Amino acid sequence: MHFASDNWAGASEPIMQALSRHSTGFAPAYGEGDLCDAIEARFQDLFETDCAVYIVATGTAANALALSAVTGPGGTVFCHQDAHIRVDECGAPEFLTSGARMWGLEGRHGKLSPATILSGLEQVPHGVVHHGQPNAISLSQSTESGTIYSLDEIKALTTVAHDNKLAVHMDGARFANALVSLNATPAEMTWKAGVDILSFGATKNGAWCAEAVVIFNKDYAKDFIYRRKRAGHLFSKMRFSAAQFEGYFENDHWLENARHANSMAAKLVAGLQDSNTTRSAWASEANEVFAIVPKSSAQKASASGANFHQWPTNGLHPDDQPNDDEYLIRLVCSFSTSQEEVDQFLALIKS
Amino acid sequence: MHFASDNWAGASEPIMQALSRHSTGFAPAYGEGDLCDAIEARFQDLFETDCAVYIVATGTAANALALSAVTGPGGTVFCHQDAHIRVDECGAPEFLTSGARMWGLEGRHGKLSPATILSGLEQVPHGVVHHGQPNAISLSQSTESGTIYSLDEIKALTTVAHDNKLAVHMDGARFANALVSLNATPAEMTWKAGVDILSFGATKNGAWCAEAVVIFNKDYAKDFIYRRKRAGHLFSKMRFSAAQFEGYFENDHWLENARHANSMAAKLVAGLQDSNTTRSAWASEANEVFAIVPKSSAQKASASGANFHQWPTNGLHPDDQPNDDEYLIRLVCSFSTSQEEVDQFLALIKS
Amino acid sequence: MHFASDNWAGASEPIMQALSRHSTGFAPAYGEGDLCDAIEARFQDLFETDCAVYIVATGTAANALALSAVTGPGGTVFCHQDAHIRVDECGAPEFLTSGARMWGLEGRHGKLSPATILSGLEQVPHGVVHHGQPNAISLSQSTESGTIYSLDEIKALTTVAHDNKLAVHMDGARFANALVSLNATPAEMTWKAGVDILSFGATKNGAWCAEAVVIFNKDYAKDFIYRRKRAGHLFSKMRFSAAQFEGYFENDHWLENARHANSMAAKLVAGLQDSNTTRSAWASEANEVFAIVPKSSAQKASASGANFHQWPTNGLHPDDQPNDDEYLIRLVCSFSTSQEEVDQFLALIKS
Amino acid sequence: MHFASDNWAGASEPIMQALSRHSTGFAPAYGEGDLCDAIEARFQDLFETDCAVYIVATGTAANALALSAVTGPGGTVFCHQDAHIRVDECGAPEFLTSGARMWGLEGRHGKLSPATILSGLEQVPHGVVHHGQPNAISLSQSTESGTIYSLDEIKALTTVAHDNKLAVHMDGARFANALVSLNATPAEMTWKAGVDILSFGATKNGAWCAEAVVIFNKDYAKDFIYRRKRAGHLFSKMRFSAAQFEGYFENDHWLENARHANSMAAKLVAGLQDSNTTRSAWASEANEVFAIVPKSSAQKASASGANFHQWPTNGLHPDDQPNDDEYLIRLVCSFSTSQEEVDQFLALIKS
Repeated sequence: MHFASDNWAGASEPIMQALSRHSTGFAPAYGEGDLCDAIEARFQDLFETDCAVYIVATGTAANALALSAVTGPGGTVFCHQDAHIRVDECGAPEFLTSGARMWGLEGRHGKLSPATILSGLEQVPHGVVHHGQPNAISLSQSTESGTIYSLDEIKALTTVAHDNKLAVHMDGARFANALVSLNATPAEMTWKAGVDILSFGATKNGAWCAEAVVIFNKDYAKDFIYRRKRAGHLFSKMRFSAAQFEGYFENDHWLENARHANSMAAKLVAGLQDSNTTRSAWASEANEVFAIVPKSSAQKASASGANFHQWPTNGLHPDDQPNDDEYLIRLVCSFSTSQEEVDQFLALIKS
Repeated sequence: MHFASDNWAGASEPIMQALSRHSTGFAPAYGEGDLCDAIEARFQDLFETDCAVYIVATGTAANALALSAVTGPGGTVFCHQDAHIRVDECGAPEFLTSGARMWGLEGRHGKLSPATILSGLEQVPHGVVHHGQPNAISLSQSTESGTIYSLDEIKALTTVAHDNKLAVHMDGARFANALVSLNATPAEMTWKAGVDILSFGATKNGAWCAEAVVIFNKDYAKDFIYRRKRAGHLFSKMRFSAAQFEGYFENDHWLENARHANSMAAKLVAGLQDSNTTRSAWASEANEVFAIVPKSSAQKASASGANFHQWPTNGLHPDDQPNDDEYLIRLVCSFSTSQEEVDQFLALIKS
Repeated sequence: MHFASDNWAGASEPIMQALSRHSTGFAPAYGEGDLCDAIEARFQDLFETDCAVYIVATGTAANALALSAVTGPGGTVFCHQDAHIRVDECGAPEFLTSGARMWGLEGRHGKLSPATILSGLEQVPHGVVHHGQPNAISLSQSTESGTIYSLDEIKALTTVAHDNKLAVHMDGARFANALVSLNATPAEMTWKAGVDILSFGATKNGAWCAEAVVIFNKDYAKDFIYRRKRAGHLFSKMRFSAAQFEGYFENDHWLENARHANSMAAKLVAGLQDSNTTRSAWASEANEVFAIVPKSSAQKASASGANFHQWPTNGLHPDDQPNDDEYLIRLVCSFSTSQEEVDQFLALIKS
Repeated sequence: MHFASDNWAGASEPIMQALSRHSTGFAPAYGEGDLCDAIEARFQDLFETDCAVYIVATGTAANALALSAVTGPGGTVFCHQDAHIRVDECGAPEFLTSGARMWGLEGRHGKLSPATILSGLEQVPHGVVHHGQPNAISLSQSTESGTIYSLDEIKALTTVAHDNKLAVHMDGARFANALVSLNATPAEMTWKAGVDILSFGATKNGAWCAEAVVIFNKDYAKDFIYRRKRAGHLFSKMRFSAAQFEGYFENDHWLENARHANSMAAKLVAGLQDSNTTRSAWASEANEVFAIVPKSSAQKASASGANFHQWPTNGLHPDDQPNDDEYLIRLVCSFSTSQEEVDQFLALIKS
């Protein structure tokens, strides 16, 4: 019963097969081989545009390098106060941007709104040297709270951003989970909705370590090859990353993986609701469930081998808070979560 | 006929098998699983000491992060003027150390000497704020010229370094090739000879992307987990890297790979010498051969599909220079170089 | 009527005299002359301890360099959400620390409390690589809200900090104003109360541009000369800074300047209270007054040549808020604020 | 007898007078007052162009910030191997550029040539990610060897730079000394000759601490106000710097100071030549003299109170070397060097 994180899973079969397929023979290093070219073209097909694609291997690298491309000296990025870039990347965005600030904004269920961005701009407006310069917003899709921005919500955010000369970054660590949940195309969820630069994650959805910075607004692609290399993120045997993407995209494998993870999460939610003692804390819209459960049940489930994280509740809206006998816990499903695990966990937590 | 670089090869069979073996099931992320613990212990066994081990995935990351651990504000690292860290890493060492300088020193065949280090210390002595502070030396084993430091040479360098309060970093991108050439133990070639911190490379010798920073002087390990994460180099599915090391070390696979690569290089040298028109420019001591060949032969070989790099000759000792009708070329052998390729290439280049 | 900031004033007479006195003749550059030695000794006398003293010329440099000395990779500094280091230094602390985060904490009237520091440690605890490492707290004395920490309050903060392995930085841009207000000695307000490192400001209190990083815990002084120079903050003709400090300290000139500024602020407060329409928003404890005044009065005063800043009210406690017809304004007094200016301003704002 | 450096002098009389003149009263902080505007206009008049002007207070800040404006990720600046930015600024350029490399090139008497720049471009060409990107050249006028580039030499360098997409930075720490030596206008020696960005130094020529980054190619001025502030180099009481420039430029005071310093240097040269035992090592073209003198004479002069630096000779052309009984020494004259000091020194050194 592994619900600690989707990165506890390994690599899915088609990805391993692609890796094996490309493991022999010689190929130019540093991304100059045919496979890497093919993967770049594959991204362009998928996104229906002539985007620039830079493969990296961790989500933190993708985010921090992307943000370094859209920020300047004294720069500020507006993001949700719970955003991964602000709280979970050990200052990598600050370091690789040479000091830009990740400016946390409030918002229920992990989501930014046009109003909070405007409030951020009141704190860090354009043209005041002491405050530095506002450069970008970063939104996570799906969010760190397992929710999703609708296409209209994304457009509303990107409109207020662009109206105020802010670039738009999307942290797509769980891009596929959001995509299948919205039933949108990659283009619709990104550049057609105003996203300038995307951290496209495959790792949490079945790859070993495959991420890409996808740049729709090519102004931000200038010098990116040097940014990546300067931070030690250019791989010599790049085909190992490209091969992962080959397996990932083949036969819509990535969408299938995401659909599976999301459906397991939905089963968790349904099972939790079907009880007087447990419930979903708020709507689960992708592959993460935030649940409120009796402390005793959580402890028992944990003792019986279930892996999950108790989640901090500071900053939470009062309506979303557990009571004193309850915990807020996070449950994450992945491509390899099984129905059996879900059933077993629900039985434990509800008993 | 692929002699461009050892990173044009893929992943060797035992490494792919280990990857497959560990691709299913769940494991704690970010290096906290059993496999990662086992690999750390394996390193400690191999090096016969309680070293600290930090897995990363590129040699540039290993080098730059290692150097960030041994340098301070205004820091200087003395290295050979052809060192990878100085000329081939796009400023990653400078960036990840927040501005340390890689101070290039002269030396024939890619090697530093105690005298050149002392000359470096004359230029950047201790205690002069304008010059910054000298912090470390970095030596590549094997060197960028395909040569090797003997154990005594390493000891002589580390002695002058420590006598002058300089840490000793070894860039071991081709550690295994040097090790089998010296017929030494990992301990003998590192901490027993005075090395404080090592970039241990497996990628060029059969892995996909497996490198490790191995720290013998634990003073330099302080904060290293934060250094790695802050630069985006902590992998969530770390077992991907650990599995590669499992396959790498099993049954001395890594030494076998290195021996094969070195022997192929030796065959190239022997073949080149057995001709009036071609020769090894200087002694090849590991898996790289620097050869002087007629321009016409090089062009013909190239046209016939042989991959190799023409090598720059500026800075070369006059005795090592090709004449006007010749090129200096670099030929690199890997675990997957075949005898057939070698023979085919020699036939072409000598015809 | 200049109440915009204490840095709108020029240099006081004794400081100009000291500058003139030292403007002729030759002296070793870069702080190695006798005058610089004497100033260092003067600081040690004043602080009654063998502190390390590094002169710089801007408060931002003092703060950012001091913080760079107490933070490590992925570091976090807990500070008030309105702290100058977080909102008014254009990311200099983030840049010069190579990416440490200034973690804003709430607190009425610009003050941290032990409880808020502990809440910060819940968000960024020790030992979690994703969150980075908590390294320090920074408190401003006097605060950005014109209030002052008592000696007991400082001790309570430094105790909780040291208990949790956090260094203590004090931003003393208005050190003298706080000191005379508390009627404490420099030692009592700093190291005797647990402060490890201090940004000592003289600029706002009568100097042209004289600041110093004073380090009580000498562990943090390691490499500081390189930190200062590496950021371009070592002055060749350092005696111009030292001379300013000579004039500053002579005959308690600095304390006299601060007393004057504080007393002018007190007169402002008294005058404001003596009216039905205007008031001090909260207690003014040094040389800054935060006043609530009718919008119409503020506009009239402004039109009549009074300089002051309207102050943002977001984040303010409800009890501290102006109503819809009022503004919150900030009024800063300096050594050169005159009784006439104060009277003239009060007459305008109350009319 | 002070010949150690021109920064051992204090501030000249007109500069102190301007400071006094502006020390009273109130003025907007951070460079927004009338005086600062006037100084900017004065620079534009002097340079006969609409340049952007950013006042800072150290030459290291001017250089490092200027270089940060013309370099990108993985950037490289070609400079003379003895350039101040490479050897005497404690890594400030590397730090404030986030890791650009100062690439030292050879050249007799401190001067770059088009050929050495082209050789630099062979080592760090455009478009090779491993080598990073070549961004700029930096030339010092006058040079660190006391020599001067003619206008034609500057043009030749800037032409080869621009032909190769390199920005041109001039380190003008001793700008005035070069200017009066060439008898050129500021415009002729900078933008008319192809200079894009200038570090304009006044400190060594009579100011306390007044430097400016003057940007002729406005593309490089983007974000500069944030660069300056982010590094802690925006002064609150900026009029302090502006006043120095007012005094500096008034009545051609700066040119007079420089002419005096240069003439004292010329007298030193003449005196040295007028002896069998001492001589100028190479042509002194500004205010610095590199002299070859008997060791015994140097020691005696030193013992008698003469201040000067013995100069390192490594890297020197054989024809410029002292013999075994001689030292190479550097003698620097300033606006406050007197004829008496020169005579006294010559008498000592030649006796």
